[in-house]
Amino acid sequence: MTSDARGRRRSLTTALGAVAFALSAPAYGQQQSLAATPQPQPGKLQIAMLVYDEMILLDLVAPLTVFSILGAHIHLVAKDRTAVRTDAGIPVEPSAAFADCPAELDVLFVPGGLAGSIVAMGDADTLGFIAARGARARYVTSVCTGSLVLGAAGVLRGYRATSHWYVSDLLGRLGAIVATDRVVVDRNRVTAGGVTAGIDFALTLATLLASEDDARRIQLVLEYDPRPPLNAGEPAEAGPDLVRSVLDRRAPVLAAAASAADRARARLAL
Amino acid sequence: MTSDARGRRRSLTTALGAVAFALSAPAYGQQQSLAATPQPQPGKLQIAMLVYDEMILLDLVAPLTVFSILGAHIHLVAKDRTAVRTDAGIPVEPSAAFADCPAELDVLFVPGGLAGSIVAMGDADTLGFIAARGARARYVTSVCTGSLVLGAAGVLRGYRATSHWYVSDLLGRLGAIVATDRVVVDRNRVTAGGVTAGIDFALTLATLLASEDDARRIQLVLEYDPRPPLNAGEPAEAGPDLVRSVLDRRAPVLAAAASAADRARARLAL
Repeated sequence: MTSDARGRRRSLTTALGAVAFALSAPAYGQQQSLAATPQPQPGKLQIAMLVYDEMILLDLVAPLTVFSILGAHIHLVAKDRTAVRTDAGIPVEPSAAFADCPAELDVLFVPGGLAGSIVAMGDADTLGFIAARGARARYVTSVCTGSLVLGAAGVLRGYRATSHWYVSDLLGRLGAIVATDRVVVDRNRVTAGGVTAGIDFALTLATLLASEDDARRIQLVLEYDPRPPLNAGEPAEAGPDLVRSVLDRRAPVLAAAASAADRARARLAL
Repeated sequence: MTSDARGRRRSLTTALGAVAFALSAPAYGQQQSLAATPQPQPGKLQIAMLVYDEMILLDLVAPLTVFSILGAHIHLVAKDRTAVRTDAGIPVEPSAAFADCPAELDVLFVPGGLAGSIVAMGDADTLGFIAARGARARYVTSVCTGSLVLGAAGVLRGYRATSHWYVSDLLGRLGAIVATDRVVVDRNRVTAGGVTAGIDFALTLATLLASEDDARRIQLVLEYDPRPPLNAGEPAEAGPDLVRSVLDRRAPVLAAAASAADRARARLAL
């Protein structure tokens, strides 16, 4: 390790005195403001995470865990404060209705969950909220099929973006330039692949919002040293038969997603 | 691909007709019982997941997502039905009190969250529940500091086991043989490293509970093809300065964990 690297680590230690290490007891050591790291806004990071019925809870929780460790003020936002249903059977109660969400956000985030995303892609209130907050947010982001909702709101036009592998091509109908990287950063749009890509996404965003040293510290605390016991995490590895069986089983919902994308495309006059 | 492999994939397609693909709409295609895959018990897998105050929500949700896709009947179990607090600010309501949890389980699972784990390590009701169900469960399992709770209940004596990197050595005080692999399988005990190890853990367990083909299918649906953007996921990669800063910041809670382990050791007469 260079002495330069050591120097950066020491300043990390100081900077992270600021963040609430949510993973055990409160953070120990000197408390400082997050303003110690470069931030255009004073105080806590303001992060709005959309929640909606039939979302994938893991899409939300992996980034939420990283953002919590960063000490962000997190707003779980929905049309109203009614708890939303998730795939995992654990409901999530919004902390703010659209109208109560701050106008100025560091991050606007949309999780996935295909059946729920399709509904959101046609919901005027949801799309209006995303378009309004997305126009001003520092970063406009998603995991999994959340990018279809961003696209339907018109905020991915002309941006490289990705989604869950089985719907990423639909982003093209929404004016985006389709990419298949696990995490895609194009200017202030940051989109990611399916479900588990949320961890890679959140560490990438932590680097952008704070620093690489902060992100490395979070990675160590979350012990993110992945060792998949099997090799079927993306279509090429999984092989055509397994891919086909997933596509076949989901044919109806994938067709519904394509229709929703076409309706959004017409509405956006793309 | 051999025709043998293709044959296995086809039978996977059939077997997975059984499982509720929670990730989008309902599973499409022929519905069959999970009994189509080798199971000692008829009907759904019975999985009890302990929930407790100050647990790490991600420790719970990653395995829960995989178990849901497997079509398991999941019991979120606590002393009573009061919602528990989590690091992520999303409370979790138990679905069953200890007394109402089935006696015969396919899986008993304990998530981590160090401050909460320390409390659980000294709670007679929790330890009694784990000892009783653990004596009969097909698999006794944990992610992160959940293994300290298993150890305090006496169910890791003589077993290889692991935990979050910063407390794994404490397992030795609880009669376990300390391991540092990401996922450790010793007979029917399956323990894993910190937080994000829960995905590797759950795919490993899916292979044991169902089949490798089922697990590969779940891996593809969750797009688990991890690409950490940084290289600090475990102590050797992170380097001594970063490790030291994490240990220093957490010194009080780590000392409390060591004391809890010593008290449990005395009680277990190890």
